[in-house]
Amino acid sequence: VFPYKCFAGKYLRVDLTTGRAEAEALPVAWAEAYLGGNGLGTRVLWEEVPPEVDPLSPANRLVFAPGLLGGTLMPNSGRLEVIAKSPLTGIYGDANAGGFFAPEVKYAGYDFIVFQGKAATPVYLLLRDGRVELRDASRLWGQTTSATERAIQQEVADPDVKVACIGPAGERQVRYACIMVSYARSAARAGMGAVMGSKNLKAVAVRGSGGVSLADPARFSRVSVRAHQAIRGNEFYPGVSRFGTPGLVVLMNPMGRFPTKNFQLGSFPWADEISAETLRGNHFVKDIACFNCPVACDKVYRVKEGPFATTTSSVEYETLGSLGAGVWNRDLASILYANRRCDDLGLDTISAGRTIAFAMECAQRGLLSRGEADGLDLSWGNTGTILTLLERIASRQGIGDLLAEGTRRAAARLGRGASEYAMEIKGQEIAAQDGRAQQSMGLAQATSTRGADHLKGFPVLDETGYPSEAVKRYGAEYLPELIDPLATKHKAMLVKDGEDFGAVVDSCGNCKSGGTFVMAEVYWPEMAEAIQAATGMSMPVERLKVIGERIYNLQRCYNALHGIARKDDTQPRRLLSEPSPSGHAKGQVLHLGEMLDEYYRLRAWDASTGLPTAVKLRELGLAEVVQRLEVGE
Amino acid sequence: VFPYKCFAGKYLRVDLTTGRAEAEALPVAWAEAYLGGNGLGTRVLWEEVPPEVDPLSPANRLVFAPGLLGGTLMPNSGRLEVIAKSPLTGIYGDANAGGFFAPEVKYAGYDFIVFQGKAATPVYLLLRDGRVELRDASRLWGQTTSATERAIQQEVADPDVKVACIGPAGERQVRYACIMVSYARSAARAGMGAVMGSKNLKAVAVRGSGGVSLADPARFSRVSVRAHQAIRGNEFYPGVSRFGTPGLVVLMNPMGRFPTKNFQLGSFPWADEISAETLRGNHFVKDIACFNCPVACDKVYRVKEGPFATTTSSVEYETLGSLGAGVWNRDLASILYANRRCDDLGLDTISAGRTIAFAMECAQRGLLSRGEADGLDLSWGNTGTILTLLERIASRQGIGDLLAEGTRRAAARLGRGASEYAMEIKGQEIAAQDGRAQQSMGLAQATSTRGADHLKGFPVLDETGYPSEAVKRYGAEYLPELIDPLATKHKAMLVKDGEDFGAVVDSCGNCKSGGTFVMAEVYWPEMAEAIQAATGMSMPVERLKVIGERIYNLQRCYNALHGIARKDDTQPRRLLSEPSPSGHAKGQVLHLGEMLDEYYRLRAWDASTGLPTAVKLRELGLAEVVQRLEVGE
Repeated sequence: VFPYKCFAGKYLRVDLTTGRAEAEALPVAWAEAYLGGNGLGTRVLWEEVPPEVDPLSPANRLVFAPGLLGGTLMPNSGRLEVIAKSPLTGIYGDANAGGFFAPEVKYAGYDFIVFQGKAATPVYLLLRDGRVELRDASRLWGQTTSATERAIQQEVADPDVKVACIGPAGERQVRYACIMVSYARSAARAGMGAVMGSKNLKAVAVRGSGGVSLADPARFSRVSVRAHQAIRGNEFYPGVSRFGTPGLVVLMNPMGRFPTKNFQLGSFPWADEISAETLRGNHFVKDIACFNCPVACDKVYRVKEGPFATTTSSVEYETLGSLGAGVWNRDLASILYANRRCDDLGLDTISAGRTIAFAMECAQRGLLSRGEADGLDLSWGNTGTILTLLERIASRQGIGDLLAEGTRRAAARLGRGASEYAMEIKGQEIAAQDGRAQQSMGLAQATSTRGADHLKGFPVLDETGYPSEAVKRYGAEYLPELIDPLATKHKAMLVKDGEDFGAVVDSCGNCKSGGTFVMAEVYWPEMAEAIQAATGMSMPVERLKVIGERIYNLQRCYNALHGIARKDDTQPRRLLSEPSPSGHAKGQVLHLGEMLDEYYRLRAWDASTGLPTAVKLRELGLAEVVQRLEVGE
Repeated sequence: VFPYKCFAGKYLRVDLTTGRAEAEALPVAWAEAYLGGNGLGTRVLWEEVPPEVDPLSPANRLVFAPGLLGGTLMPNSGRLEVIAKSPLTGIYGDANAGGFFAPEVKYAGYDFIVFQGKAATPVYLLLRDGRVELRDASRLWGQTTSATERAIQQEVADPDVKVACIGPAGERQVRYACIMVSYARSAARAGMGAVMGSKNLKAVAVRGSGGVSLADPARFSRVSVRAHQAIRGNEFYPGVSRFGTPGLVVLMNPMGRFPTKNFQLGSFPWADEISAETLRGNHFVKDIACFNCPVACDKVYRVKEGPFATTTSSVEYETLGSLGAGVWNRDLASILYANRRCDDLGLDTISAGRTIAFAMECAQRGLLSRGEADGLDLSWGNTGTILTLLERIASRQGIGDLLAEGTRRAAARLGRGASEYAMEIKGQEIAAQDGRAQQSMGLAQATSTRGADHLKGFPVLDETGYPSEAVKRYGAEYLPELIDPLATKHKAMLVKDGEDFGAVVDSCGNCKSGGTFVMAEVYWPEMAEAIQAATGMSMPVERLKVIGERIYNLQRCYNALHGIARKDDTQPRRLLSEPSPSGHAKGQVLHLGEMLDEYYRLRAWDASTGLPTAVKLRELGLAEVVQRLEVGE
């Protein structure tokens, strides 16, 4: 019997090459050290996917992991974490999605699922409680994600079976293909969909009828209800609940933080036309919430008629950035249309939009001719070209085959100095945050373990300035710099804390997005208490902090096996040396170096190599890592 | 020595399977009986491609034929005729393009080129005078037509080499893939591009330095100059020269002849927004003319900026119909964008637009769900969906694979009564002419030998009413019915004469389009005199008429081998029984039956089978056809 509650104590290993699926015992030490989700997935990669493994080869692992608190009363506890070596970055990769899929995995009796090998022909996994089947998915191959989900629910004759699947882009191993999750939520980043495609795994369908046992149900209930209440009482709750992340557009634009024209600008002149107010006013249909979420930041939007009639959801601030401002497109209906196509094709909207923006800047600079671009006019804001490229990328046709490789590889193949305009870090495209306008974010993007990313460190206190929470978390002595987006002081601390806490959140399966809330109202003490009440582990805050730090360090060490070092914790030259032309950030560059020095010091990482020291790793209980990495003391 | 001038007396046979290319002698009897282009191509199909041959198999033949007068002083003598069994209709197929390609074939010393077999890997034919090479085209495979043309010109280091090539659509054997011809002129219809693709033949590149010898140069020059002068003096010349075929939009729309919403309507409420005036006013860059053309109906158009920035040409009345009114799209810039995409992908704009319109009507009628349509919103006028579908059709992705089969096959596969909305004849989609509004055209579409088509019979006298020419050609006794578009009387005569004369024009390589002119100012007497002066054959008008009738009858007989009979000379039920709701045609249906009876009588074809009688065939010198077809007396 597993010594802790809330764990199933076992996980499902599916070998797609042999077709065998077996339950394996979850090591107790892993549970204690990594909790769930992201943490356990990191450990699987560390153990089973050495550096020589190509991310798109059968030897890669693909982990579908709910969080430790997945499916419980704790708010927003339905997040799914997908972990694999990334075909986009070649290092640790993960992606996270909301919806209703993750709890079903726990209800079916598993802490996570790990896939290995490659099926001879397309299959999907059907997991219903203890019953596991690999079913033929030949007739689903080529189908869109929405059609795939529907077809499986019909085949299984259960409209409540939860489906995670890839679209044509994943099948073609587009390096930033996403996985769409029950329904239209996207495990978007780092190309997890391409890994699925490389394994001939079209979908994973899960339905469970079990429950999640708790060590101290009454106490867990109290912690959870308090968290719900706190979130509902938060000052930002009404706005985020009403507008979702698109509400950020009008906040970020004047800051000069809203990347425009492939980061040539930090503000979009027509931000009002693609703002949350416009979106809600013209296209809102209804709110939709993920599993057990009091916020319901997601909405269904409809373009009723005209040239871009469509229905879509999960339209995020990021979408408006990548398919709007980033490519100089002010036509909101076309952005919604493109969002739906990305969802149906199974493309990460961020990387897709950014790669198109890269191509447009290459055309602007004379580095990419119209002939090379399959006759497409790549002028800024060309909606026709944006829609056309999404199709061509997903099917890897012509120029789409080049762009399907992602910005970094496309730039390298083009040559001609095109890398200058590749706005990526470690191979992953930068999302809708200009680090010059928020220095902490500039640092967080550079240190993120999955390449450019806003959600690992996820510094939000200085995003719009949030003094009350800053004082509550860190004390008044860090003000005013901590909440000044242009200041660099204390930002390393903010990012390190965010990374460690974020690792815990991603391992527990709660939500960071929409969820400025969770970050604000559920912090170390609340998470520690919830975990203790759920599992029965003794979980003082200090122990939980070590877990968070351990997970993040292990990801870093995994990347170090692949050659990642300080040289890679960087940003495109444009952001480091060209002053921002926009908004509050006007005249600013990103002061990365000084923040990085402090960051390594706080992490006890070597300032020249960027590698964790042996002392730190032993302190985190990662002695075996010291040996494998051969790091010095 | 060949007994007639103007002929090379030899043609080039290229076996793609073996890689051998050899000159073969043109039989003198063929030259006398069929002249060139279309006529010789028909004879090749009759001889070499029996009914059991699949159009996409290596056994099909593909003929590239300039006309007899190709490359001479006669106006518009640069048309290329491509002939093969059609993968769209399964019967006789041809397509015709302007530009500069066809004369080069004659200058290189051949009357035509015939391809057979299939290359093991992609190749292109390079023909420079006597030198013939099959070159590797692997690196061109997947490239757009514009890029392919450029790449070949660069490889050959000759910017004047003329290229005919296919795009991705032809490679994928989309059944209405076109061949793009030097530059951006399209041999569009009947899927000739798919035949090229099935043979792994990416392109044909030709450059010749020889001339065309004439029997009586002085007389030929006089005939030619007179024709040029007559065309320039024609009352419609200034308008067509200024506006090209798009000028027809505002003329056809009030007639109810401009198919709208997949022929649900015959007038487009926003015709002004896609008219030639608007086109010229907003997008005109410059005129471009085909070889030796005094009209220059083609224009380069540019959308300078915004969501559909592009540069394109060969924007025809048909384009505005198929990608505009037919799919309820009033955004002219998006039509230009879509036209460019069709050109680059190598899609016939007519069949592509019509197939999309068919899909949209199926969605309207509840016969095609959004899931089946890859998540696309198929509501009328959805520009995003139109652009997306063009990409998906060309790459045969998802729903695009179904639509790539053409309307008839797509409807059959869908079932559910969808054939009701398939606006096609013999498998080919109907162009922008509603037969209810112009009865002669309704007949001509039904009798055309390549399936629904406006250019075989091409009746224009009653299109807008053209009394002076009607009287000149046929005499006053045919008025007023002959020029009344809603009258059926005399229309069979008009269509038969148009088909026979058109067969001669297509065999001589002159232009019918733009060329209401050629039809008006160059008629039987002028053509007969030109042919006699060019070749030295004695060519009284009556002899030429027999040639035209022979060619058309041989096409009909070829189709009869494939089971074509009167039952196939029909139109969609909608046009035969639903009164037109639009314009001048309001309340009218197409009275096909009565015109057909008269047509068969004039043709001396059996009124019940629709087969030529043995008497007629012998009269036309087609005794061998009588035997093979086993037709009665």
